[in-house]
Amino acid sequence: MTATAIKLITLSEFLELAETKPASEFIDGQIIQKPMPQGEHSQLQIELCEVVNQIAKPQKIAKAFPELRCVFGGRAIVPDIAVFRWERIPRLDSGRIANRFEIYPDWVIEILSPDQRYKQVLGKLLHCAKYGTEIGWLIDTEDENILVVDSDCRVMELQDSDRLPVLSGVNLELTVQQVFRLLSL
Amino acid sequence: MTATAIKLITLSEFLELAETKPASEFIDGQIIQKPMPQGEHSQLQIELCEVVNQIAKPQKIAKAFPELRCVFGGRAIVPDIAVFRWERIPRLDSGRIANRFEIYPDWVIEILSPDQRYKQVLGKLLHCAKYGTEIGWLIDTEDENILVVDSDCRVMELQDSDRLPVLSGVNLELTVQQVFRLLSL
Repeated sequence: MTATAIKLITLSEFLELAETKPASEFIDGQIIQKPMPQGEHSQLQIELCEVVNQIAKPQKIAKAFPELRCVFGGRAIVPDIAVFRWERIPRLDSGRIANRFEIYPDWVIEILSPDQRYKQVLGKLLHCAKYGTEIGWLIDTEDENILVVDSDCRVMELQDSDRLPVLSGVNLELTVQQVFRLLSL
Repeated sequence: MTATAIKLITLSEFLELAETKPASEFIDGQIIQKPMPQGEHSQLQIELCEVVNQIAKPQKIAKAFPELRCVFGGRAIVPDIAVFRWERIPRLDSGRIANRFEIYPDWVIEILSPDQRYKQVLGKLLHCAKYGTEIGWLIDTEDENILVVDSDCRVMELQDSDRLPVLSGVNLELTVQQVFRLLSL
C-alpha cells in the first residue's frame, strides 16, 4: 500500500536476508527500509543515548542502544533508540551480550525524519506499547514537540517546558526544550 | 511551522473572519484551511452521517453533523463529522438549533485527505479527547484502517473485521470493513 513496500514475505524469511543500510524493518508482511539519517537525527540519536547511559549504565539500571533490531509480536523493528532494563538485556552463558534481541524494548525513542510517514512511526510505538514497552517517544524536530505513548497506548503531545516521562527507575529529569537544546553544538 | 500556516491571531479575531470554503480551523494561533474534499471523502462523510442519524436521530439519542465549527479549549475546529448527544445540541429558547457550537462534540470522525498531515489530524482528535469527547475516529481510506482515540487519549489502530467502538448509547455495530464498503456505490 505504501511507496516503500517491496513484497510480502514471512518474518523468518526476512530474518534470513542480509542487513541493509539504513536498516530495514519488517512490519505486517512488508519490508520497509528506514530513511537515510540526516544531521539532526544523528545528533539527537547519539546525544540522547549518552544522556540515558550516563545516568542508567553506571548503576546497571538500563542501557540505551541505537539502531538495534528487536523482534517481537511478529515484527522486526529497529528503533532509533531502544532502552532495555539491565536485567532484560539478552546475554549468552558467557556473560557476553546476545546478538539477537527477541524481546520488546522497555523504552523506545523515535526521531521523525523529513518525509517519513508519521502514521508509520506512531504505529511502531503502538506496537511496542501493546507488547510491553513502558514508554515511547516520537520526537518531531520540525514542530519541536514530542509525542509520548505510555504502556496503555495513551498518547500525549508535549512541548516547551513540559517534563518528559522516562523509564521508571531512571533518575532523569528532561523537558522538551532540553531535548531540542541537544541539537546545538 | 507548517506550509498551511498564515499568521498568528487570537481566537476572537479568527471568529470575526468570513467563512472560507473549504472551512478554516484555528489551532494554536494559526489559521489552517482544510483540504478540498474529494470523492472518497465526501462519500464517506455523507454515508456515515446517514448511518449514524438513521439509528440515533429517531430515538433522539444523538445527531451527526458534517463540517460544523466547534469552538472549545481555545481552538475552533471543523470536524468532518461531529456527533452530539441529543440533549447537548445547543438550542435557542425558541427550540431552534443554535448557530454557535461552543462545546466539544461527543464523537468526532475525521477522514484523512491525500496530502493531509496525519499528525495534525491526530492532534485534533487528542484535543477533543482532552476536553471531553468520548470517541474519535481517524479514517485512512488509503491504508483501509481506522485509528480510534478514546476519552482517555488511548489510541488503537483497527482494521478488517475489528468492531469499531461508537458513542455509548448508540446502538450501532460496525466493523472497519463495513465502513470502507460505504465507498462502493
